[in-house]
Formats: sequence, structure tokens, C-alpha cells
Amino acid sequence: MLRPSELAPGLLLGDDVDLADGIEFGGNVVVHDGVRLGGGVRLGDGCVVGKPPSLGARSTAPRELPGPAVLGEGVTVGAGAVIVAGAGIGAACVVADQAHVRERVEVGAESVVGRGASVENDVRIGARVKLQTGAYVTAWSELEDDVFVAPNVTLTNDPTAGRRGAAQELRGAVLRRGCRLGAGAVLLPGVEVGEEAFVAAGAVVTHDVPSRTLVMGVPARVVREIEP
Amino acid sequence: MLRPSELAPGLLLGDDVDLADGIEFGGNVVVHDGVRLGGGVRLGDGCVVGKPPSLGARSTAPRELPGPAVLGEGVTVGAGAVIVAGAGIGAACVVADQAHVRERVEVGAESVVGRGASVENDVRIGARVKLQTGAYVTAWSELEDDVFVAPNVTLTNDPTAGRRGAAQELRGAVLRRGCRLGAGAVLLPGVEVGEEAFVAAGAVVTHDVPSRTLVMGVPARVVREIEP
Amino acid sequence: MLRPSELAPGLLLGDDVDLADGIEFGGNVVVHDGVRLGGGVRLGDGCVVGKPPSLGARSTAPRELPGPAVLGEGVTVGAGAVIVAGAGIGAACVVADQAHVRERVEVGAESVVGRGASVENDVRIGARVKLQTGAYVTAWSELEDDVFVAPNVTLTNDPTAGRRGAAQELRGAVLRRGCRLGAGAVLLPGVEVGEEAFVAAGAVVTHDVPSRTLVMGVPARVVREIEP
Repeated sequence: MLRPSELAPGLLLGDDVDLADGIEFGGNVVVHDGVRLGGGVRLGDGCVVGKPPSLGARSTAPRELPGPAVLGEGVTVGAGAVIVAGAGIGAACVVADQAHVRERVEVGAESVVGRGASVENDVRIGARVKLQTGAYVTAWSELEDDVFVAPNVTLTNDPTAGRRGAAQELRGAVLRRGCRLGAGAVLLPGVEVGEEAFVAAGAVVTHDVPSRTLVMGVPARVVREIEP
Repeated sequence: MLRPSELAPGLLLGDDVDLADGIEFGGNVVVHDGVRLGGGVRLGDGCVVGKPPSLGARSTAPRELPGPAVLGEGVTVGAGAVIVAGAGIGAACVVADQAHVRERVEVGAESVVGRGASVENDVRIGARVKLQTGAYVTAWSELEDDVFVAPNVTLTNDPTAGRRGAAQELRGAVLRRGCRLGAGAVLLPGVEVGEEAFVAAGAVVTHDVPSRTLVMGVPARVVREIEP
Repeated sequence: MLRPSELAPGLLLGDDVDLADGIEFGGNVVVHDGVRLGGGVRLGDGCVVGKPPSLGARSTAPRELPGPAVLGEGVTVGAGAVIVAGAGIGAACVVADQAHVRERVEVGAESVVGRGASVENDVRIGARVKLQTGAYVTAWSELEDDVFVAPNVTLTNDPTAGRRGAAQELRGAVLRRGCRLGAGAVLLPGVEVGEEAFVAAGAVVTHDVPSRTLVMGVPARVVREIEP
């Protein structure tokens, strides 16, 4: 249950919040029940950490209650960002202003979820991954270390666009180590992008992208290999 | 006029707010003058309901003051979401975290405005419509029941891109019952998408889409019919 | 340092804030140290003005502390909007709900940063510019007077997508007077769009666009001249 706290102006703290040393609070921050914050975490104005998921009546996301949100040492959370219960944010990550990270997302150390970017439920993200402004990472995706996702990239996971039967699984993207997705690219459900591959800006990716290739266009086609 | 309320931590309530039973408030919620909230409405942390429109000096949106915002029974409003005065949100809808709904929008029951999605002024949305993360619904659009709009879809209404004369009307999209728009699709002004049609991800739709067809590409072309 | 203020409900004010006459505050507003607000400025619910930049460990944005945020007469800041320290917003501008403006951005008079739009660091924007919902203006861009940027347009500045060497500069877009970018368009790094040019919706712009031409497609090609 949220209650006003004297630790910072406008701060609301839930029950059993675990605060390490040296945490900096902006104004009007909300930290929900059970959240664990590592040393030196910085929480920006009006951010919300550990809120329970709010699923629609027809959402197919799992409904078991997630554990608390856990933020590692030195994590920075931006103004107006929202981190849902059950997210785990690695040390020294930045969840930038107005970004959004959902339940059961795991983010490795030193990664950045850019301003207004969105990471849906049940996504695994490696270390040093960079999601830029407005990038959209669909549920059930996997992003390995050192992946780069440019602004307003869109990943998808539902080939039926809302008409799945009960037996059909969502298939997120698989982004292998060090691949890069250019601005505004769109990936069809279940696409895998290989190691060190590069998807050009504005590409619409309908098939898997081989490692160390550059793909481009609508639909995206391999235009050349990328030299190591 | 907003005043602190004892009903919840950080809550600010305007005058003449009509609260039914069983409403749940997150932290730091703002509810403006005259808002009407149905039974069981849940308002997420830091959301804003019923704020007056804030039009730019050159905006052509109508300037009469809209009525209050009205939220039906069981509506869920996410953290950081903003609902403008004059919006009507049907029973059991979800306006997700960081989403935005403007004045004189009407949304039917059980619809979802996804995380960070935006519905501009004077839009009519039917029942069970799903707008996913970052979808943009331009002013003066009409979405019938069971429409599905994937992440980061963009609808448009101004063929002059800001150079309209006084006599030219904006022409939003018309999305007929059960049509689906794939991720990142862009619709030109005034386009109508027929019943049960499917616009592929990344398509740029320059002409009307016949019912029960699949269109694809830039510009979008019919590739086949969709079996019922 | 932020402290509760009696001027408005939930307001937090930093030190040495310079307030002109006739300022209107929504609820739960946060105004940081040193911010200067011109007469008649309106600050929407939950907006944040003048927050310090929060750079990731690997960000290459300049790290010197910017000066205060300065908002000219009659500026409107929307609900949930974030304006970073060192931004200068000209008279009668609108920074709409949930929008974001970063450090060392200069915006001319009567411009609009639309709902959820994002302007990165070190951008110069002229007068009467309109950035619509979700538009993304990358760092180090220049937008001259009367530019129009439609919803969900994406500008870019890094041809290496995150692999720059220390000697490589970011190259933002240059948008000349009165040019227009259609919805969902993507511009490659360093592209210049000429005066009164028009980039069609969904175009991917890989080369400079001549003045008074219409470009279209992926990649964008000139389709005709635009009559004056």
C-alpha cells in the first residue's frame, strides 16, 4: 500500500520496499510494494516503479502475479518512466524518460531503454543493448548482448493480428549478438536477425536475416555481406 | 479547481467529480472538474483524467469547451495516461500506461488503447477494438467494432500537410468492422479499409482497401482475398 | 533542490526559479532549479521542467551541465511533458502532452512539439514549426521556419548505428524553410530536405531532397516539382 514518505518531496512508498544506500529520488516518485533498489539508483521525477500489471479483459499475457521489480546498482530511471512489477533491470542500466518496461523482462547490465521506448512482457535483453527512442520490443522477444535498435523500430509477434487460437503461441523476435536494426524498421513475427547483421532503416523484414549481412527494402533483401 | 483529497495518496480532485463505488486510485492521480467515473474504475499512478484541451494558437480543432470526461464501469486507466475532457470511455475498456485520448472521442465497450497509443480529437471507436502500443489514430477517424491496429501504425487526415485552406476538411481514416492493420503501416488521408481486410505490416496505403482482401507493399496493392 | 510550494496543489519548486506574472499550474508539476518562466506560461498536470540530463554511461552527448530551461511568454506545456535543463522554448510555443525536449534545444516562437514527440539534444528549431504526434527529431538537427513534420516521422544521425569511432560526428537532418515530411517517413543520417519540398508519407529518404520537389517511395525518388 502506498504511503507518503519523508525521504523525498512527493514520494510515495509501498510496503516492504528494499532501499540500498545512496538512492536519489526526484519529485513525485512512486515505488510499489516489495521493490528492491540497488545502491546509487536514481529515480526521476514522476517515475513509477513496480506497479502491478494492468491487463485488459482479453489480454493473453500470463496472469500469475509477478514478483517485485528489482533494480541493480546504479540504475537510472527517467522522468515519467514506468517499470512494472517483475521486471529485473541490470546494474548501470538507463530506463530513460517516459520509457516503459513490463513484467518478467530481464535486462542485462549497462543496457539502455531509450526515451519513450517500450519493452513488453517476458522479454530477455542482454548486456550493453541499446534501444533508442520509441523502439518497440514485442512480448517474448530475445535480444542478445550488444544489440542496437534505432528509433521507432517495431517488432511483432502475432501473425494473426489478434485472431490467434488458444493453441497458437506468440513468436517474438530473436536478435543475435551485435546485430543492428535501423530506424523505423519493422520485423514480422518470429524473425531471427543473425550476429552482426544490419537491417537498413525503413526495411520490412519478412524472413530471417543471415549473420553479417546487410538487408534493405520492402520486403528486405540481402544486399551484401558485412566485413568483420 | 484541483484540491488534495484524502481518498488516496497524492490524489488531486476537481470540483463536482462524480465517483461511483469501488474506485481504485494509484498514487498522484489527477481528476479534473466534472469527471464522471463508473463503478470499479481503476486509475493508475500519475494518470490525468478530464484535463481541458490545450490547443496551439494555430490548431484547427474545434474550440468550444467539451463536456466532462466520462469513464464507464470497470474502466482501467494506466500509469501516466492522459484522458482529455469530453472523452467517453466505454465499460471495461483499458486506456493503458502513457496512452492519450483527446476531447470528443467515444470508445465502445471492452476496447483497448494500448501503451503510449494516441487517439486524437473527434474520433469514434467501436467495441472490442484493439489499438496496440504507439498506434496513432488521427482526428476525425472512425473505427468500427473489432478493429485491430498493430503497434506504431500511423493514420493521417491532412493531404496538404499543414497547408489547408479554411474550406478544406480533414479526412480521417474509416476502418470497417473487423479489419486489421499490421505493424508500422501508414494510411494516407481519407482511406477506407473494408470489413475483415488485412493491411500487411509496413504497408503504405494510398487507396481504399476492399473488404476481405490482403494488401501489402509501398504503395499497398491487393495480393489476395482473405477466406472467411 | 525541490520543495513543496503553496502556489499550486502538488507543485514542487527548485531553487532560484524565476516566475513571471500570470503563470498557471496544473497539479503535481515539477519545476527544477533556476528555470525561468515567462508571463502567462501554462504548465500542465505532472509536467517536468528543467530536469538535469540523465545520460547513459556510454552516451556521447556533451556532459557539461547545461544552463537552466527558459520558457518564453505564453508557452503551454502539456500534461506529462518533460523539458530538460538548457532547453529554450520561444514565445507562444506548445510542448504538448507527454512530449519531450532535451538539453540545448532552441525552439522559435509559435512552434508546436506535438503529443509524445521527441526532440533530442542540440537541435535548432525555427518559428512556426509543427512537429506532430510521435515525431522524432534526432540530435544535431536543424529545422528552419515553417517546417511541418507529420506523425511518427523518424530522423536519424548515426550511419554506423552505434559503432562510431571517436572522430566521427553525428549528422542530423537539415530541414529547410517550409519543407514538409509526411507521416512515417524515415530520413537517413545527414540528409538535407530543400525549401518547400514535400516528402511523401512512408518514404525512406536516402539522399538530399531538392527544393520544391515531391519525393516518394523506398528509397525515395523525385516524382515531380511542386508549383509555387
